[in-house]
Amino acid sequence: MSRIDGRTPEQLRPVTIERGWSKHAEGSVLVSFGDTKVLCTASVNEGVPRWRKGSGEGWVTAEYAMLPRATNTRGDRESVRGRIGGRTHEISRLIGRSLRAVIDYKALGETTIVLDCDVLQADGGTRTAAITGAYVALADAIGWAQGKKLVKAGRKPLIDTVSAVSVGIVDGTPLLDLRYEEDVRADTDMNVVCTGDGRFVEVQGTAEAEPFDRKELGALLDLATAGCADLAALQREALAATL
Amino acid sequence: MSRIDGRTPEQLRPVTIERGWSKHAEGSVLVSFGDTKVLCTASVNEGVPRWRKGSGEGWVTAEYAMLPRATNTRGDRESVRGRIGGRTHEISRLIGRSLRAVIDYKALGETTIVLDCDVLQADGGTRTAAITGAYVALADAIGWAQGKKLVKAGRKPLIDTVSAVSVGIVDGTPLLDLRYEEDVRADTDMNVVCTGDGRFVEVQGTAEAEPFDRKELGALLDLATAGCADLAALQREALAATL
Amino acid sequence: MSRIDGRTPEQLRPVTIERGWSKHAEGSVLVSFGDTKVLCTASVNEGVPRWRKGSGEGWVTAEYAMLPRATNTRGDRESVRGRIGGRTHEISRLIGRSLRAVIDYKALGETTIVLDCDVLQADGGTRTAAITGAYVALADAIGWAQGKKLVKAGRKPLIDTVSAVSVGIVDGTPLLDLRYEEDVRADTDMNVVCTGDGRFVEVQGTAEAEPFDRKELGALLDLATAGCADLAALQREALAATL
Amino acid sequence: MSRIDGRTPEQLRPVTIERGWSKHAEGSVLVSFGDTKVLCTASVNEGVPRWRKGSGEGWVTAEYAMLPRATNTRGDRESVRGRIGGRTHEISRLIGRSLRAVIDYKALGETTIVLDCDVLQADGGTRTAAITGAYVALADAIGWAQGKKLVKAGRKPLIDTVSAVSVGIVDGTPLLDLRYEEDVRADTDMNVVCTGDGRFVEVQGTAEAEPFDRKELGALLDLATAGCADLAALQREALAATL
Amino acid sequence: MSRIDGRTPEQLRPVTIERGWSKHAEGSVLVSFGDTKVLCTASVNEGVPRWRKGSGEGWVTAEYAMLPRATNTRGDRESVRGRIGGRTHEISRLIGRSLRAVIDYKALGETTIVLDCDVLQADGGTRTAAITGAYVALADAIGWAQGKKLVKAGRKPLIDTVSAVSVGIVDGTPLLDLRYEEDVRADTDMNVVCTGDGRFVEVQGTAEAEPFDRKELGALLDLATAGCADLAALQREALAATL
Amino acid sequence: MSRIDGRTPEQLRPVTIERGWSKHAEGSVLVSFGDTKVLCTASVNEGVPRWRKGSGEGWVTAEYAMLPRATNTRGDRESVRGRIGGRTHEISRLIGRSLRAVIDYKALGETTIVLDCDVLQADGGTRTAAITGAYVALADAIGWAQGKKLVKAGRKPLIDTVSAVSVGIVDGTPLLDLRYEEDVRADTDMNVVCTGDGRFVEVQGTAEAEPFDRKELGALLDLATAGCADLAALQREALAATL
Repeated sequence: MSRIDGRTPEQLRPVTIERGWSKHAEGSVLVSFGDTKVLCTASVNEGVPRWRKGSGEGWVTAEYAMLPRATNTRGDRESVRGRIGGRTHEISRLIGRSLRAVIDYKALGETTIVLDCDVLQADGGTRTAAITGAYVALADAIGWAQGKKLVKAGRKPLIDTVSAVSVGIVDGTPLLDLRYEEDVRADTDMNVVCTGDGRFVEVQGTAEAEPFDRKELGALLDLATAGCADLAALQREALAATL
Repeated sequence: MSRIDGRTPEQLRPVTIERGWSKHAEGSVLVSFGDTKVLCTASVNEGVPRWRKGSGEGWVTAEYAMLPRATNTRGDRESVRGRIGGRTHEISRLIGRSLRAVIDYKALGETTIVLDCDVLQADGGTRTAAITGAYVALADAIGWAQGKKLVKAGRKPLIDTVSAVSVGIVDGTPLLDLRYEEDVRADTDMNVVCTGDGRFVEVQGTAEAEPFDRKELGALLDLATAGCADLAALQREALAATL
Repeated sequence: MSRIDGRTPEQLRPVTIERGWSKHAEGSVLVSFGDTKVLCTASVNEGVPRWRKGSGEGWVTAEYAMLPRATNTRGDRESVRGRIGGRTHEISRLIGRSLRAVIDYKALGETTIVLDCDVLQADGGTRTAAITGAYVALADAIGWAQGKKLVKAGRKPLIDTVSAVSVGIVDGTPLLDLRYEEDVRADTDMNVVCTGDGRFVEVQGTAEAEPFDRKELGALLDLATAGCADLAALQREALAATL
Repeated sequence: MSRIDGRTPEQLRPVTIERGWSKHAEGSVLVSFGDTKVLCTASVNEGVPRWRKGSGEGWVTAEYAMLPRATNTRGDRESVRGRIGGRTHEISRLIGRSLRAVIDYKALGETTIVLDCDVLQADGGTRTAAITGAYVALADAIGWAQGKKLVKAGRKPLIDTVSAVSVGIVDGTPLLDLRYEEDVRADTDMNVVCTGDGRFVEVQGTAEAEPFDRKELGALLDLATAGCADLAALQREALAATL
Repeated sequence: MSRIDGRTPEQLRPVTIERGWSKHAEGSVLVSFGDTKVLCTASVNEGVPRWRKGSGEGWVTAEYAMLPRATNTRGDRESVRGRIGGRTHEISRLIGRSLRAVIDYKALGETTIVLDCDVLQADGGTRTAAITGAYVALADAIGWAQGKKLVKAGRKPLIDTVSAVSVGIVDGTPLLDLRYEEDVRADTDMNVVCTGDGRFVEVQGTAEAEPFDRKELGALLDLATAGCADLAALQREALAATL
Repeated sequence: MSRIDGRTPEQLRPVTIERGWSKHAEGSVLVSFGDTKVLCTASVNEGVPRWRKGSGEGWVTAEYAMLPRATNTRGDRESVRGRIGGRTHEISRLIGRSLRAVIDYKALGETTIVLDCDVLQADGGTRTAAITGAYVALADAIGWAQGKKLVKAGRKPLIDTVSAVSVGIVDGTPLLDLRYEEDVRADTDMNVVCTGDGRFVEVQGTAEAEPFDRKELGALLDLATAGCADLAALQREALAATL
């Protein structure tokens, strides 16, 4: 089977991670997974939410959104509708949990970092691109905070890297990193978030059409684990460059 | 290791499925998984949402909510706050997807069934109890619709049963059907939705503290598959009784 | 004239008051007036709203809501619509005022008790059942607070009991405790809230069709006063039992 | 006992009913009960709400609101808060019900009349002034509609007049038409809406401090019935003048 | 060319400024520009918004709104719709900025004055009438605050007067103070806010149909400057009278 | 006087207009005025809003928004707050009016074009950059619609070009195209929108500190007119290139 863009089933789309995209944010990345482009900014604020004050521990949270015409047909703005949709809520929470999985709150100290992931153009995999890019923006923001002595010397708030990728079964074949047209046709759709050491932070598999069995699940996890490892390498490479 | 309520790791809490709880709804179930109690009602409406009109296909959707004092400390009402929280959105969507996985839309015809899952008392596993109970309410509602000839004779809108259970790793041990106190202490928390034939509809695993590896994931899936099979048997038993 | 359920005009429906329904709330009652079932929970919080701080006086408030399928046709959730309807507001305020009429704020001290009255099934008289049940939940919550020494020894925050019942004129006959089908056909509809000593806390009479005169008003008040006295006896009996 | 403004207990404040206040509305009245001033406008729209279409019957509804500085201390705008408060809802519904009590829907035909009652200055009794003024604006709007042939010749959509007044027990004395300072000190507060023939449309009595007994209720109803009759005479007089 | 009401192009409508309209507000004015009537109330509050605390400086802000039937066809209430429209926001901000232009924050001290401008009847020029009337209400409120020693003796919080007027080009002729029917037909519509010394605080010109050139702009500014000067004289005259 | 970035008072910042930025939108431009970057997408929809149906005329509207970290300190998302702020409303309306000034509705036919202007990075002049960029996206969308025969052959829906620039008086000197740091220090701030023929569509001048006189206004208009002409040339140049 040949994929619409000629990739093999286990191949990622071209991935770019452009650091320092914004002049204002403490960390910022324009990440692209093929035609999916997400602007990830990290904002550092001294202090933590009220329920965490005095704990000596920091906090990391995320908000995801799509520009109205990021997609093929224009969607109404959630600000205009006056409410955030379920999908937006769900993805914002997923990104936040994924990043917090690699944070040592004690090492961060009472500092809050907010990741904004705004999809400028969508072609499938926006949440996984967002997590992958947001990690790099977060790393830059922590570097900035260390430079400003907001994080104490010698502490390492980041325990590991974290990246994410989508996988799915299309016409019976497990595929890595689905484009929108593949995603629409998938029987099963799964988003997998891994740490740099190859363990799982989140596994979210959904049978869009046909329920899946244990063997199919295994094949998808194999693909996703390899994909996340490739993304982790790209993250390390991006962070190794001088900003 | 001994669990707080004396169960073995692979044991469900006492489960009850009380059909016909409400005099108004076309299907209604008060389901309990131990101290977790969820009232599930199914409402049948002729017609479908606008985007589905003329397709000859039906629709099934769900809304989940908690009473303010279902939990140990009172939560504000979402109606009073004027907006639905992310967690509520997420679970409502999960229940809807899970039920739709066993629906034959064509056989249902242009009829909509809304499942309302209201948590009267919470002690962990509210979303899995909701899915398990909602399936039975849905089956009763479809039976009602067949009696009223809203569903054409000879058609079977339900392809299979669907049930759900939570699993998690607590102090290194994989456990089935977590109570609230176990859930809070779990390193990994997973909700698994299975059809009656043992395949997966949803697998949602989250590392609450430590990332998990492939072997741990396997152990959790083993537990969940067995638990869902037990729940499917209880559903069949409940539906076999005369209402 | 014979009523649809065979009652005499001055007869209440079967009333049950089930205390201790919830394991979490400090007071909880599942009250039923025939097929009308309302879950009333009382939540005790130390402290009072800001405008009352430092007064040495407590506060009691209430929120009323209906599950979407408590009624014969499903109603939209107020949380989904993003706003609370006028009827809900009106009834929540009525319940709060009714309970506060029997509270000695000084004796309660700076403690707040919130009563949540959620209608699980509706068949007329939901607000009067809510007041009647909420009083019992409130009494249990105050007992709990006294046990926890949140209320000072020797103080009696409850001055009297309070109960409520609906009355109406149907086909020219004044009737007590209307079911939904009677309520719909009533020319005049009145809700009356009485203290245990037989005085009025609230009298809310509305001409649904024909205006009513002084004599009709008198007949309705006679019925309601007797009905409230019966309910007060049932409340005392319920509270006399060991929880 | 002497009242703060020298009135006897059974005396209304000076009442003025200024018709034709607005150049745009089909009916408009600036009504004052002493320092309470309410602008009531009636807007006539062809057609009725969806649920009433094809019935041949009309509809009358009302919205009540207060300007932010109508009261002694400024209140936040409900538009700014993004939600309507319970009190506003309650009063809007009361005004609507009161006016509908004197409407013959069939005679009105499929026409909707919306009454807007905006309190420009408040000194107690805003809802009763609103009902009393809105009736006159409604009568003018119906006259306008008859002139425009929107209401068929020979039909009388108004069955009777309707007026309203507040009564209360202050320091043991029943008083008519309370000013704000009296209202605050009242043990019992009652709003009564009567038709021109002296029957009741609404009786809403609330024990603000002490519960009230049957005899006190009787004294209040006596006062209110006489007060409403006086107001009905003022309404007739206002409507008898040439606009 | 003759205007619909017989005015010359450079003539204001009859303007009235009625001080002391409300018994509650610290300053209040019912201003009319012809049939446009706006009730402006000024509310004085000790203290300032949080972001200004400790600065020793005061704050002045404004809220504009229209009654639903101030216009020829009834508009929905913004409180009912649950959100404030763009036009309302825009005008509220304009009024606030205009008044702040003549305030010496230091002289005012940490006091906040809120101007509420509610349009009771609209016939064009509601925002300019609101600014003109609100200035007078503000002056009265400051006088009140000086009397109460909330503003320190010898300080002059008002630097100058401020007034506003609309101008527009209708059928090629620049006109002052447009009525609604003129406004609708205008090619260009401009609102100009001037201080008493004839300088500009705001110039907001919009080409409703045809873009305008520098010469037309000049003609409009000439008209507006003269109109604002006339209004400033009327403001001084109104304030010179004993309240 | 030397400006912070070395520009002369009458000099624009470097302006880039990058067409075809998005693969989904019918027209899309990433416009930058120095460090201000706005993504403008144009979405073409068949049909017009209800109030315009059957008129044979089209409609153009715009929505403006800022990403949360487009600015130096992170702003809350309007979708999260549940309401759109006054500034956003104001600018969206300004952009829409500006573009409609150069549209021939009849030539466009019953087609709606929505311009989304999302500020990715802000450094002053976001609304003027948005108008300037949105015009180009609009022109491309109209070209697309002509290619798809949605706009009839031979018709020219665009009458002229439209561009916008900010001007202001900083330390007594009139400056063109203010950066954020200049804008903050400006006494007067003006946004001017011109058509390609040099006439005005919008003139919005605000005295931020000191009121301005006629001569200062003249100097600002001179600067703005020249700046808009430069921008018009850049727009023409951008559109002359092959997409």
